[in-house]
Amino acid sequence: MMTLFGYWRSSASYRVRIALNLKGIKAAHHAVNLKSGEQLLAAHKDLNSQPLVPILELGGGTRLTQSLAILDYLEEAYPAPPLLPTAPELKAKVRAAAQIIGADIAPIQNLRVLKYIRAEYGQDDAGVKDWAAHWIREGLKPLEALAEQNDDPFFMMGTPGYFEACLIPQIYNANRFGVDMSAFPKLSHLNHLCLKHPAFITALPENQPDADTAP
Amino acid sequence: MMTLFGYWRSSASYRVRIALNLKGIKAAHHAVNLKSGEQLLAAHKDLNSQPLVPILELGGGTRLTQSLAILDYLEEAYPAPPLLPTAPELKAKVRAAAQIIGADIAPIQNLRVLKYIRAEYGQDDAGVKDWAAHWIREGLKPLEALAEQNDDPFFMMGTPGYFEACLIPQIYNANRFGVDMSAFPKLSHLNHLCLKHPAFITALPENQPDADTAP
Repeated sequence: MMTLFGYWRSSASYRVRIALNLKGIKAAHHAVNLKSGEQLLAAHKDLNSQPLVPILELGGGTRLTQSLAILDYLEEAYPAPPLLPTAPELKAKVRAAAQIIGADIAPIQNLRVLKYIRAEYGQDDAGVKDWAAHWIREGLKPLEALAEQNDDPFFMMGTPGYFEACLIPQIYNANRFGVDMSAFPKLSHLNHLCLKHPAFITALPENQPDADTAP
Repeated sequence: MMTLFGYWRSSASYRVRIALNLKGIKAAHHAVNLKSGEQLLAAHKDLNSQPLVPILELGGGTRLTQSLAILDYLEEAYPAPPLLPTAPELKAKVRAAAQIIGADIAPIQNLRVLKYIRAEYGQDDAGVKDWAAHWIREGLKPLEALAEQNDDPFFMMGTPGYFEACLIPQIYNANRFGVDMSAFPKLSHLNHLCLKHPAFITALPENQPDADTAP
């Protein structure tokens, strides 16, 4: 059985939870407390040379890191149901949209970057929120344009897949950082559709055992 | 014939140049001047809803974006010679290492982010350099650890591939931002080997027609 090392509010962990659910793969969940810095502890560092989640441990003990590499692995090792279109050009378009999130938005509003701008540039809560919201909006703009050109029920697919596994966690973060999602009606509609789907509901941060929703 | 829209010093464009060369694919090169903001011009925006390079235009006119999605496309559409191992688990390990660069390093030290911290947080040249060097070092550390565990001539491969197409441009940036590469001997050795390879030499920023190496 696979084990997912993750954190309830990590959007990269959230992507992998969605993908596992869409594929119907059962995995054990091991919570790593990012807020208290558990990811820096020696025991966890031993699992992975980079102190970040998620880590997917396969049945044989191999540990995979980086959420998009994990999504590609799941797609290749467990092809049904597919999370990507079959044609290489279409596959590239879905992966590119996902990478706008995975490369151009999420890493810049990641916890470690927010900590850095707070410590080094003296940003307070409002300043940190402005930074995160800025980069999220900058990335959602091209995604909204791509979604406008899309005629499929989901992004270039008949069912939710690779793109939605990245989009829904990013919109969750957008809401946390006070981004006005009314500027992104197509993406908001996709979010609305996905949040009715069991694979997405089960993956919601607040539905994880380690969720700490106290104010 | 394919056309690559890129910029000589953009590390994401540099990755795609290397991959095209390794695959032996001839492509026309169209330079987009990032420094003067040409990527924001309407004509270029029309090509791509996200004002970033690289863009790979295929013979049929389809335009692909996001360098790692382009690398995956090239691997799937032109399988020989391979840039990734065949086994899904090994492929995931190479992609994960590449994504440490493509997600956790490069986007954070990207030109648009450097411009933002200069404008919003009043950082001067030295401050901007410190920011970039910090995130590069943070990302090279886990990569050095991965390279130490690697027994193959290149990263999990007998020949340079997907990982090296990302690593060499990142080391180029590390040098630009004054990162002391002696802390990363295994990565430096890989860099040294690749820079003797014609696919990498042809792709070097200073060997591009739009290179502006004036001080």
